[in-house]
Amino acid sequence: MCELLGMSANVPTDIVFSFTGLMQRGGKTGPHKDGWGIAFYEGRGLRLFQDPVASCESEVAKMVQHYLIKSEVVIGHIRQANVGKVCLVNTHPFVRELWGQHWCFAHNGQLADFQPARGFYRPVGETDSEAAFCDMLNRIRKEYPEPVDVQALLETLIGACSEYRSRGVFNCLLSNGEWLFSFCSTKLAEITRRSPFGPAQLRDAELTVDFHAETTPNDVVTVLATEPLTDNECWTLHEPGDWTLWRGGECVARGQVPAC
Amino acid sequence: MCELLGMSANVPTDIVFSFTGLMQRGGKTGPHKDGWGIAFYEGRGLRLFQDPVASCESEVAKMVQHYLIKSEVVIGHIRQANVGKVCLVNTHPFVRELWGQHWCFAHNGQLADFQPARGFYRPVGETDSEAAFCDMLNRIRKEYPEPVDVQALLETLIGACSEYRSRGVFNCLLSNGEWLFSFCSTKLAEITRRSPFGPAQLRDAELTVDFHAETTPNDVVTVLATEPLTDNECWTLHEPGDWTLWRGGECVARGQVPAC
Repeated sequence: MCELLGMSANVPTDIVFSFTGLMQRGGKTGPHKDGWGIAFYEGRGLRLFQDPVASCESEVAKMVQHYLIKSEVVIGHIRQANVGKVCLVNTHPFVRELWGQHWCFAHNGQLADFQPARGFYRPVGETDSEAAFCDMLNRIRKEYPEPVDVQALLETLIGACSEYRSRGVFNCLLSNGEWLFSFCSTKLAEITRRSPFGPAQLRDAELTVDFHAETTPNDVVTVLATEPLTDNECWTLHEPGDWTLWRGGECVARGQVPAC
Repeated sequence: MCELLGMSANVPTDIVFSFTGLMQRGGKTGPHKDGWGIAFYEGRGLRLFQDPVASCESEVAKMVQHYLIKSEVVIGHIRQANVGKVCLVNTHPFVRELWGQHWCFAHNGQLADFQPARGFYRPVGETDSEAAFCDMLNRIRKEYPEPVDVQALLETLIGACSEYRSRGVFNCLLSNGEWLFSFCSTKLAEITRRSPFGPAQLRDAELTVDFHAETTPNDVVTVLATEPLTDNECWTLHEPGDWTLWRGGECVARGQVPAC
C-alpha cells in the first residue's frame, strides 16, 4: 500500500513540515520505499517532483525539503508497489490537462481486474492507479466537454470512486489547483489548522514546528494524510465512503456513500 | 527570444555539461532570465524541472546540475519572455499525454496573431508556444486517433511547423521519449559526438569535459542548441526551414522546407 498527503490552504503555504514527516515513512519509519512524488500548484502552474527510489534516500526529496515552495494546493504520495514495477512512469502523482487546467491525482490502494474502457486519456505506465485516473477524466470529459464548476462534477466523481472502491481499495486525492477532493475507502485523516496556532510534533522525526510563529491569524491550512502525521494534535479520521471537497483550506462539501 | 537545448543518445547520458553552459545564458552570459525548464525521459517516464526565475540563480537548477540524471532524450529551454507573463504556467517545456505517451515540447520564437481552433488539448498558460503545441497535438490526434510511427507523422509535423513559421519565428524541439524532432525557422545548431571522443570547452563557463573519459566507444550523443555551446568543436548550423529527426543519437531523417 501507499500513503497520501494533501494540503489545501487560503494563502501560499510551505508543506516542508508535513513532507518531512511523510518522507521518513518512505523506507525509514515506514515500508513505502518504492518511490515518492509531490505536486505543488503555483497559480495555474504545477511543479511535480518524483523519484522512483526510497524517499528517505532521495536527492530530489532532500532538495524539496530545503526549498521552501509555497503553494495553496499540494498532493504528495509515497509508494509501496503492488501493481506495476518500480520506475518513474509508475510513480504518483499523475498529471493530465483537462479544460486547459492541470489535473493531478494520487491513489492509495489497489484494484482487482480493472480494465476500463479505452478512452481519450490513456495510462503511460502500468499502474491500476493511473488507469483509474484516466478513466475518471474520460468520464468527466464525456459528460462535460466544456468546463463546469466542481460542484456540478461531484456526482460523477463520487460515482466513479464508489465503482473503483467496489474492486478493491481506493483512497485518493484529486485537484485542478483550485480545489482538493478526497475519497476514503479504508483510511484517511484530516486536520485543519487555524488561529490560535500552536506547536506540532512530528510522529516520524524529531521535528517540532511552532505554527504560531510561521503564520498570520487569518491563515487556514488543511492537511490530509493516510495516517496522522503529528502526535500532539487532534486529527479527524475518515470513515470508509467519506468524501470531502476543500477550497482555500476550508471544507466546502463533504458526504458519505454507503458501502457497496 | 529564448534558447533551446535538446539531446538524443543511444545510452542514458547525463547532460550536466551542456545544461551548465545553457544555464549561464539565463541571466549571466545571456539575457534569458525569465525562467527555465528541462525535461528528462526515463524510459516512458518524464522528469520535468522548471523555475520561473533566472536559471543562473535558481535553486532547482543548482540541484539539477549536481544530480546526474541520465537520459536518452532531453529537452531544455531558457526563457526571455515576450508573450505571457513570467510565471510557472508559462515556463517551457510543455507536456501532454498523447496515445499513452508523454509528449514534450519547447519553442524559441514568437507568433503574431496566433488563434488556433479550440481543440481537445488546450493551453493552461498564455504563451503562443503552448498554444502551438496544443494545436500540433490536436492536428495529430485528429488525423491519427491511434498510434502511428513518427515517420508517418512527419508530413503533419512539418506542415504544422511551416504554417506556424509563416506567422513569425518558430524554432522548436518535440519528443515522445523515443525520438527527438527539431524544426529551425531562424537558428539552431547540432553536434554529434561519437568515438573517438575528445575534450570540449564550454563557451559560457570555465568548464572543460573530457568525453573520452566519460563514455564508451559505442556511445553516440547528439546535442541540439540555439547557439553552439562549446568553442572548440565543429557544430553544424541549421538553415531556415531545416527539420531533423533523431533516434538513439543518430539522425534518421532530415529535410528542408522552402521559405513561405
